[in-house]
Amino acid sequence: MDLTPLLQDGGRIVLVVADGLGGMADATHDTELEEAVTPNLDALAAEGATGLLNPVGPGITPGSGPGHLALFGYDPETYELGRGVLSATGVEFDLRPGDVAARGNLCTLDADGVVTDRRAGRIPDEQAMPLVDRLNAEVDVDGAEVFFRHEASHRVLLVVRADGLDARVSDTDPEVEGRPMKACEALDPAAKRTAELITEVDRQIREVLAGQAAHALLLRGFDTLQELPSFAERYDLRAATVAIYPMYRGVSALVGMDLLPRPGDLDEQVATMGAHWDDYDYLFLHHKYTDEAGHDGDRARKIAEIERLDAAMPAIRDLGPDVLIVTGDHATPTQLSAHSWHPVPVLMWGPHVGRDDVDRFGERACAGGILGQRPTLDLMPLALASAGRLRKYGA
Amino acid sequence: MDLTPLLQDGGRIVLVVADGLGGMADATHDTELEEAVTPNLDALAAEGATGLLNPVGPGITPGSGPGHLALFGYDPETYELGRGVLSATGVEFDLRPGDVAARGNLCTLDADGVVTDRRAGRIPDEQAMPLVDRLNAEVDVDGAEVFFRHEASHRVLLVVRADGLDARVSDTDPEVEGRPMKACEALDPAAKRTAELITEVDRQIREVLAGQAAHALLLRGFDTLQELPSFAERYDLRAATVAIYPMYRGVSALVGMDLLPRPGDLDEQVATMGAHWDDYDYLFLHHKYTDEAGHDGDRARKIAEIERLDAAMPAIRDLGPDVLIVTGDHATPTQLSAHSWHPVPVLMWGPHVGRDDVDRFGERACAGGILGQRPTLDLMPLALASAGRLRKYGA
Repeated sequence: MDLTPLLQDGGRIVLVVADGLGGMADATHDTELEEAVTPNLDALAAEGATGLLNPVGPGITPGSGPGHLALFGYDPETYELGRGVLSATGVEFDLRPGDVAARGNLCTLDADGVVTDRRAGRIPDEQAMPLVDRLNAEVDVDGAEVFFRHEASHRVLLVVRADGLDARVSDTDPEVEGRPMKACEALDPAAKRTAELITEVDRQIREVLAGQAAHALLLRGFDTLQELPSFAERYDLRAATVAIYPMYRGVSALVGMDLLPRPGDLDEQVATMGAHWDDYDYLFLHHKYTDEAGHDGDRARKIAEIERLDAAMPAIRDLGPDVLIVTGDHATPTQLSAHSWHPVPVLMWGPHVGRDDVDRFGERACAGGILGQRPTLDLMPLALASAGRLRKYGA
Repeated sequence: MDLTPLLQDGGRIVLVVADGLGGMADATHDTELEEAVTPNLDALAAEGATGLLNPVGPGITPGSGPGHLALFGYDPETYELGRGVLSATGVEFDLRPGDVAARGNLCTLDADGVVTDRRAGRIPDEQAMPLVDRLNAEVDVDGAEVFFRHEASHRVLLVVRADGLDARVSDTDPEVEGRPMKACEALDPAAKRTAELITEVDRQIREVLAGQAAHALLLRGFDTLQELPSFAERYDLRAATVAIYPMYRGVSALVGMDLLPRPGDLDEQVATMGAHWDDYDYLFLHHKYTDEAGHDGDRARKIAEIERLDAAMPAIRDLGPDVLIVTGDHATPTQLSAHSWHPVPVLMWGPHVGRDDVDRFGERACAGGILGQRPTLDLMPLALASAGRLRKYGA
């Protein structure tokens, strides 16, 4: 339903996303969230309403882009975002219509060109940045501008700017180690020249990086800028993010959130939120490390990161949100070391949210919650309503 | 969502359908499944994930065709199957595009043409088959070929083959006893000739059957062949059925499943599954007798049939499926002696399915399960995901 005719002024909403929060109970383990000791989250669950969210669709394992768009109330099947655009917006690169952007991984190759480490040993920033500087200085392609921007560790943004580009080209990232890089190919006849440009850029990158700590950029997610309607247009909300990671700042910017000064850690995220409290109706805090631990299959660390977020909840609660939501963008069970399709627990807390009998924040507890099990896309209208921001529909 | 771009190789899925499994608890009774003693199903529920399925839509009582299409992930509102086509495929009749097929019931009529028994006393096969042979030999209509095929007991397939047929004609089955048969009428002007042909076929059938153990064929579900996309196309699955009843073999064939040699009973169904285990990624076992007992309002028999299925579960589990699903195509509560709209319990079991706290396979227990209450159509993507057959969506 189009909410715009129903919008009115109301209270303040805080969305806290623990990336990859959801887990998978199995024969030997509870989920990480169930095992974590989370007195503050449990108190919010006990005082509020709980449920389970399905980010994109039944059985669908979402990437971070679709997972967050759904949390923001944008149907991920309508608004498809490539990783290139997310990366570009994340590093605050001034991407223009017609530019083609891709995410690049600094990687290592053996003498035969076979990928030996897709992340170049998670190369530290201080080693990666000079390499990116050299790429900017030395890669030079006729008839196009080529930009490289360092994101973090092995992650690099590539942007190609020229007339008549078309992003329908294939990735060069083989996605597994032990194989050579793939050729960039046009997926549509209109993208032939773009594929040729990328092929030349790739050749020059390898030339520039020969003998360095990383030997090539694995490119994936070629994309052009798609304009999204903003939070202001859709929800009449002044919205801001205190995310740390570029990609989540990126997707926030795409929906028109202000990017608050980049905090260094969770405490600074909460402090930044507090410092700008009066200027915004909607504040988005993103906690990345639960997902990282999930990807690494590190159960103890995922639990510790959940407990770290739990410890931050009193400070967030003390800011006085009218609606406080804690959930994830998808599941990243440590047993799978990857994103998954399993449902994600959610809690909503605030004077008009309602409450249920669930007094524990965990997947199986939330299965009995009053929010039920529902698409993540439902979250935004529920949040707006709970903040008093949606008028009655019909007479 | 179109799953085809996400498909990858993965594990083996087994779907066990107890036809009409769902029941209806009321003031005096638990459901049949709740009352049944089902230690093996309960163990699967305890180790796996549970929920409730709604086959077609809220309040919609499905026929067997839509119920199974939904289980197979085909939206029953998009893919409408008449009973005629299901019957034809079930008896492995070579139905051709343009043919019009209908399901016929051998019935008895009184002297005034009023239907006295819609199933001719559930006439045994050995009495019904010679009647069908006579119909094939003696019914002869100008400008059309007419085929009769015996299915089982009172059930007979009718196929009319001619140019320019149109299946939009009305049933002759009054659906209740104590009324005369209805006239076959064109529901669209284009079907006028078809209605006339059916009317003539009906007249000749009554002539041939005069004085026999059955006196007419009640015709319903006129239909022409609609091509369905196959399991191979949609899911990249090699699929097979070990169903016994023609109609369920029929709907399996329509979605491109291989029909394994027809087993005689539940033990043979499991044995057949095992014998062909390595050749397939998806195996469908259909247990009919729960539904029959439901239709007959025979509570004790429905419970016994559920317990019989329960006893077969260890052998199925021992085959080693990666995902094992047990559910129904719809509810058939014995209190109603008919299909109903009530939700159908489902359990999914396997290493990546996840688990919940439900330790009993029953309607009210499954209401608290982590799969939630959802459309039956969600089952197939959840099964594919749990078998590792769906890649991540989006960046």
